[in-house]
Amino acid sequence: MAFSPLVDELVESLRCLPGVGQKTAQRMAFHLLERGRSGGSRLSDALSNAMTGVRRCERCQNFADTELCGICENPQRTNGTICVVESPSDLLAIEQAGDYRGGYFVLMGHLSPIDGVGPEEIGIERLLDRIRQEGVSELILATNPTVEGEATAHYIADRLDGQGILITRLAHGIPVGGELGYVDGFTLTHAFRGRKPLIE
Amino acid sequence: MAFSPLVDELVESLRCLPGVGQKTAQRMAFHLLERGRSGGSRLSDALSNAMTGVRRCERCQNFADTELCGICENPQRTNGTICVVESPSDLLAIEQAGDYRGGYFVLMGHLSPIDGVGPEEIGIERLLDRIRQEGVSELILATNPTVEGEATAHYIADRLDGQGILITRLAHGIPVGGELGYVDGFTLTHAFRGRKPLIE
Ligand SMILES: [Zn+2]
Ligand SMILES: [Zn+2]
Repeated sequence: MAFSPLVDELVESLRCLPGVGQKTAQRMAFHLLERGRSGGSRLSDALSNAMTGVRRCERCQNFADTELCGICENPQRTNGTICVVESPSDLLAIEQAGDYRGGYFVLMGHLSPIDGVGPEEIGIERLLDRIRQEGVSELILATNPTVEGEATAHYIADRLDGQGILITRLAHGIPVGGELGYVDGFTLTHAFRGRKPLIE
Repeated sequence: MAFSPLVDELVESLRCLPGVGQKTAQRMAFHLLERGRSGGSRLSDALSNAMTGVRRCERCQNFADTELCGICENPQRTNGTICVVESPSDLLAIEQAGDYRGGYFVLMGHLSPIDGVGPEEIGIERLLDRIRQEGVSELILATNPTVEGEATAHYIADRLDGQGILITRLAHGIPVGGELGYVDGFTLTHAFRGRKPLIE
């Protein structure tokens, strides 16, 4: 901006946000300076508090403000069912669906040997420790339906083989409200194989 | 998020940014927490410094860190030419074009009687004071080519009528590199009326 180092630094810093380039950062900075100073100060405090205060839950690796996250602190949700997801945003999507009432384990990503990401790095050893200590009746492997997500799910299943734990994977099929003509072939094949009688 | 008040507050605060809804705010918060904590802390500091430190230049109403903005502090740019713009982003666009070397006056918007925005509110009295004190050889009215922008420009021109000041308005015409077929009729009419001999 050449006339205000403080504005320059604000524009530059806003670019750490995903999807925010130079033009958008300028627009955001001007908006805050012209009409949103109280919002900007609130955001400054929220960022500072979150960046220093948010950690990983010691039991499930979810984001948490204290030792345990809100879900692990809830005794009704530590009921012997663990749902394994790749990230906090996957966990949030499941929570927003509103139906699942068990616990979670948040991997920090997925296995990716080519990038040096092994079972230790994403917390699989920690998950196995927890299962050994707490016991588990059902383990739902809700990693993403990608090559890496599938490989990660299979790795975990193999490690628990023969221990009598019910291990499940989310159903593939046609999205609710989706149109058949727009569904890809793999999904359609899965939907056919998983077909159910209309009257059960 | 229901499991971390600090994350909830971060998501909520990010929504003060223009164009950022709930989903985008979540994605931004998770990105910062998972992979961008140093960027997030830097942004927190930049916001706090800018929200409390950035003020309006006492001479031209541009954003400034001190009494005068960088442009007003430059003696080469206080050469008797003032370019009047509606906002700091308009000023920035002209600066980035790189050709203009005079001074500015940044209105805080445009005249809008229906919203109670009169000459006092956007600093026109201050501009007229400055012209009386400093004198001015040319006043370029670079308000936007909208109804309100035109009205604001005409109001300023009327107030300075008969004082022997050269008052100009930016040329309308076909954008450089634009295709004739995509230019609207008003612009085309302006371009015809303002046509120039090829060899001058
Ligand atoms: Zn937890
Ligand atoms: Zn100035």
